[in-house]
Formats: sequence, structure tokens, C-alpha cells
Amino acid sequence: MAGTLSIVGVGPGDPELITLRAARLIGSASVVAYFCREKHPSQARTIAQAHIGPDTEELRLVYPFTTEVSVGDPAYHQNMTAFYDQSAQRLAAALASGRNVTLLCEGDPFLYGSAMYVFDRLHKQWNTQVVPGIMAMNGCWSQAQAPMTHGDDVLCVLPATLPEAKLASWLERADAAVIMKIGRNMPHVRQAISQSGRMDDALYVERGTQGGQVITPLAEREGAAPYFSLVLLPGRKRVR
Amino acid sequence: MAGTLSIVGVGPGDPELITLRAARLIGSASVVAYFCREKHPSQARTIAQAHIGPDTEELRLVYPFTTEVSVGDPAYHQNMTAFYDQSAQRLAAALASGRNVTLLCEGDPFLYGSAMYVFDRLHKQWNTQVVPGIMAMNGCWSQAQAPMTHGDDVLCVLPATLPEAKLASWLERADAAVIMKIGRNMPHVRQAISQSGRMDDALYVERGTQGGQVITPLAEREGAAPYFSLVLLPGRKRVR
Repeated sequence: MAGTLSIVGVGPGDPELITLRAARLIGSASVVAYFCREKHPSQARTIAQAHIGPDTEELRLVYPFTTEVSVGDPAYHQNMTAFYDQSAQRLAAALASGRNVTLLCEGDPFLYGSAMYVFDRLHKQWNTQVVPGIMAMNGCWSQAQAPMTHGDDVLCVLPATLPEAKLASWLERADAAVIMKIGRNMPHVRQAISQSGRMDDALYVERGTQGGQVITPLAEREGAAPYFSLVLLPGRKRVR
Repeated sequence: MAGTLSIVGVGPGDPELITLRAARLIGSASVVAYFCREKHPSQARTIAQAHIGPDTEELRLVYPFTTEVSVGDPAYHQNMTAFYDQSAQRLAAALASGRNVTLLCEGDPFLYGSAMYVFDRLHKQWNTQVVPGIMAMNGCWSQAQAPMTHGDDVLCVLPATLPEAKLASWLERADAAVIMKIGRNMPHVRQAISQSGRMDDALYVERGTQGGQVITPLAEREGAAPYFSLVLLPGRKRVR
């Protein structure tokens, strides 16, 4: 009998922000799989470590490259397609042999996750369950003690990879906003926030819920940012 | 020495979708507090039940009314202000006596939660920590097996209480969207989705992650909806 694929969110970084179900499905899996870069530990694995049994097989899905080919290059998409095809085949082989496979994802599997591309390839043929995880933004706004949406506030989740003008236009409309995947997009994120008149409310969070966490007003933050940093714009607060 | 206030998200309904930290802070609290309606059990308490110790004191924060006064009436806001003032005073009294208090919240405490109004009143004076929870939308899109955002998709979280034209205008712009707090707003939510041309992609979820869960295309759903139901519009999928 074929195994079950469990695609499991492990949360934003703090190992205690994993759910009881995620912990159970990691502990009971025959195979634990995760995405990672060559010669780097997987962040998702680090979060889940305490729950991985000593006899569990581990399947490393190693991204083909990160910096050599630019995202705009058609070769990038070809390489990634081939990578996800191959990853899905490796997972399918384990499932076919009757083993239960738990695929770990940082944050929540269905918000900008690599796991979605594997899900798309496997869920019709294999028994698949998806377990939600605490997203980076939830972890960050809790740590920043920033209530986000009151009453009928609208929350927009914006990738920093959007062009500056688009980002500014979203920020002008949104009540509350989160800007994700900052990294080298920091200069135009900053511009877009200034342009929309919201710099005074913007909070910068780096390594949220993890060791070395930084929380500071964006206006007081200078220089570059890692990819896994984000900006919070709390909603228009109603006093009640 | 004064106690610590822990404001803790308990997730969307399934008791296994609580975090390890939430479970610990519920189990170790001297006082567990929660919002509820008169003569009704608290949904947050039901989710957390397995972790509440036999000697734990429970503090019920009973909403003053739900249907007698309409939200547009100034009396509604006066009543709610008085209620949050009083709730904060009761929590403060427990903290002052040196007891650690864990306040339970469905979903995540900082996304449209009553707990925000208590947080606003207490966090400057009392030692306060906030623990994120899995939000209803995460639980629902996992159960619906609906990947939400790929690439640079924008996700908008929209309260169904917005006027129809506003809702439609957000839906025309958003890549992915979640519409929350459906309830009696269902007729104009339906209109707004039709108007924005997205009825074919809309998924209706009721009692997500709980017993009696319903997941169905919105187009096939007729009639009224409970308050805690939502609509998912997955983003514009990129095949990779």
C-alpha cells in the first residue's frame, strides 16, 4: 500500500511555534524531506529537529543554484521546472514503496512556498494532506507587539519583488500591509513606503522569532536586509 | 511580584493545530481567560480544553450582547468600550495578585481579535507576551488543498463587512483574496465576486478544520452562512 504525503508547515523559526500535528507527523514519518541549498542546513529541518526520530530517513531536495542564473533568464525557469519534477519523482518513489513522507516547509506551505510546486505534481496521484503553519508575518507582528487589523481594516500581503510604483499604489490603498521577501529589494521598498506617506508607521523585522531577532522602526534602519526579513504596516487603529 | 499576561492564539478550531508554546502556556497558567457569549461555551476554550489543568482558575469575559443593539448604534460602541475596560480590569486584578494569566484567542490574536482591545489597555503596565496562532484562513486553504500565492502574487484579506462596491474593487485588483466574517453579508459578497468576474474560482469554507466542515465552490452554495465562514480566491497560478 502506498504511503501518505504530509506537507507540513513548521512555522516562522522558533521551534516552539510548531503545531502539535506537525510535531506528530514529523515524529511518525518514515521519511522526512526538505528543501535546502547545497552545503547548507535546511532552516525547516533545524526548526523541526527535536521531533525527527533516530531511524527516520532524510531526503534533501537541493536547489540547483541560487545566484548564478538571474530570475529573468528563461534558463532559470527551465532549471527550476526540472528540479521540481525531479523532487516530485523522488518523493513519489518513497510513497510508492509504502513509506509515509513528511515534507517540511518554513511558515505555511501554501503562502509562497516551494512545496506548492511539489503539491501540484503529486496530489492527484498520491494521498496528500496539508498542515498549516504559523506564517512569518504572524510571528513577526506578535514579537513586535503590533496589532494589525481592527474593525473592517483590509490587510495586503505584498512581495517586495513588485515594482516600486505598484508597491506604492498598494500601500496607498491598504489599511494594514506586510511586505515580504525584502532582501536586495530594500531600496525600492523604502522608496515606495516614503511615497505612500507611511514611513512613520513602518516596522522592520529581521530573523523574527529566531536568535538575533531585530525589530526597529524602518526609518531608523539603514543598509541591506536579508531575504527573510519583512516590513509591517499596522492598520488604522480604532480606539474602542 | 506581578504575573505575566500571555495572549495566546489557539488556531482555527482543530485542537491539534495549537502550537507547542500555546499548549505550554495554557498548562502552566494560574488563570485561563477567554471571551464568550452568555450561556455559550467559548470556542477558544473548547479548542484548548485538553491543556487546561484541573486547578486552573477560569475567567469568563462575557460579551454584553450580540444582537439587540446594531453595530451602527453609538450605544454599541459605548457598551463595547465599557466591556473591554472591565475585562482589562479583571485581568489586571489577577496579574496584580501575582498570578500568570493566559488569555485564549481563536485564530491569531492580532488579526481582528477582541484580544487587541485588551492588549491596548494592558501592555504598557503589565508584562505581556503575544503568541501567534494558525489563522482561520490558513486552516481553510490547507483543508481545501488550495495553494494561494505563487511568485509575486498579492494576497488581500478582506472583511465581508465592507460595502459591495469596495469589495468588488479590491477583488478586481487582488491576485489572491480571502473574505472573512461572511455571515449575513453573504448576498453582497456573492454580488461583489460576480461583479469582479471571479465566481468560477471562489471556494466557500464553513467550520474549517472542525467537525461539520463544508468546502464547496461558492457557485454551488446556496442560502445563508454562519459568521465564521470564509471565501477563498486562490492566486493566479504560475505553472512551473
